[in-house]
Amino acid sequence: MRGKLIVISGPSGVGKSTVVKEVMAQCETLQFSVSATTRPMRPGEVDGKNYYFVSRDTFQRLIDEDQLLEYAEYVGNYYGTPVGPLDEALAAGRDVLLDIEVQGALRVKSRRPDAILIFMLAPSFQDIEARLYGRGDTAPELILGRLERARWEYTQAVNYDYLVVNDNVDKAVSEILAILKAEKCKAPERLHLLKEDN
Amino acid sequence: MRGKLIVISGPSGVGKSTVVKEVMAQCETLQFSVSATTRPMRPGEVDGKNYYFVSRDTFQRLIDEDQLLEYAEYVGNYYGTPVGPLDEALAAGRDVLLDIEVQGALRVKSRRPDAILIFMLAPSFQDIEARLYGRGDTAPELILGRLERARWEYTQAVNYDYLVVNDNVDKAVSEILAILKAEKCKAPERLHLLKEDN
Repeated sequence: MRGKLIVISGPSGVGKSTVVKEVMAQCETLQFSVSATTRPMRPGEVDGKNYYFVSRDTFQRLIDEDQLLEYAEYVGNYYGTPVGPLDEALAAGRDVLLDIEVQGALRVKSRRPDAILIFMLAPSFQDIEARLYGRGDTAPELILGRLERARWEYTQAVNYDYLVVNDNVDKAVSEILAILKAEKCKAPERLHLLKEDN
Repeated sequence: MRGKLIVISGPSGVGKSTVVKEVMAQCETLQFSVSATTRPMRPGEVDGKNYYFVSRDTFQRLIDEDQLLEYAEYVGNYYGTPVGPLDEALAAGRDVLLDIEVQGALRVKSRRPDAILIFMLAPSFQDIEARLYGRGDTAPELILGRLERARWEYTQAVNYDYLVVNDNVDKAVSEILAILKAEKCKAPERLHLLKEDN
C-alpha cells in the first residue's frame, strides 16, 4: 500500500512547528520531508535534518532537472521539496509529512491530487498578532508584513482539504492524527480487502 | 454547527454490534438512532431503546406519511429509520449513528449525500463463516443464506465512504472515532473559522 502525502501549512505565528513536532513524535510511521533551501544555516541546525542547505546554483540545477515537487521564494531565499526521497518513502508505504507554505502546498495538490492538505488556523486572527509581537524577536514592520501575508493565506485555506484550529496543541495534534487515520480508511484505499480470498 | 450523520453497515457475523456499542460508549456526543420495526420484541429488549416496536399498520402509516428516512424488509419484518428524532438531533448539533443494513444505507446516502457511510468488513470471508457457525444458534440453511447475503453486501461496499476491518475491536473503534473526528475537520465544515472577526 502506497504511503500518504500530508501537507501542513499555516501562517507564521499560528504555532505550527510545535504541533508538527508533536505529530511526528506520536506517529512513528510518519516521515518528515526535509526541504532544500538556499538560506544560510542557523546555529543548531543540521544539514539533512532541518534542511538540505544548498547553493543558489545547486538549487537552480534541482529546478532545471525537475527534482523539486514544488519550490517558492520566501524573504529572498528559495525553499523546495526534493521529489526523490519523497517518492521513495511513499512507494515503500511510508506516510510523508510536508510542512510548507501555501503556494507550495497548492502546487503539490495540483501535481499530486491525492495529497492531503491541512491548513492550521489560529483561534482568532488577534492570536496571530499577539504571538508575533510576543516573540519579541521580530521587527514591527516585519510583523505587519507577516500579518498581511497571513490574511492572504487565510483566503487560500478554502482550497485545503482540512482546517485545524490550534487553540490547544493536544487537540490539534489529535485532529491531524485522526485525519491521517481516517484517510487510510477511505474506501478506494481498501478495495483490495473486499476480495473474498484476501 | 449541524451534527453529522454516520451510517454503519456490515454483514451478519462481522462483529458489528460489539464495535458499535463501544463506539457509543467512547463518544458521549454521539446519539444512536433507534429504528422502528414490526418484528416482535425479544426478552430483554426495551421499546424506544433497542427499537420502536410498532404494528404493521403503524409502520405503513409511517411510510405513507414519509416519516421514515429509509426502510427495508428483512426476514419478513420491516425496519425503518424515523426521520423526526434524527433531524432534531442533527439540528441541535448532535452526531447521529445509524446501524442499518446495506440497502437502507444506500437509500440514506441518496437522500442525504452528506451522510458518512462506513462498511465493516471481517478480516476474511472465512471469519464471517466461522463466526456464524460458532454462534451455534442459527440453523445451517440460515447460515448459507446469510453468507449469500454477505457476498452481495460486499459487492455494495464500493459505494461506501470508508471501509473498516474488524480484525481487532479496539482498532475498529479507534478508526471509526477517527473518521468522525476527521470529517468534522473538513474545510467546508469550518469555513466560518476563516472569518477574521470570528
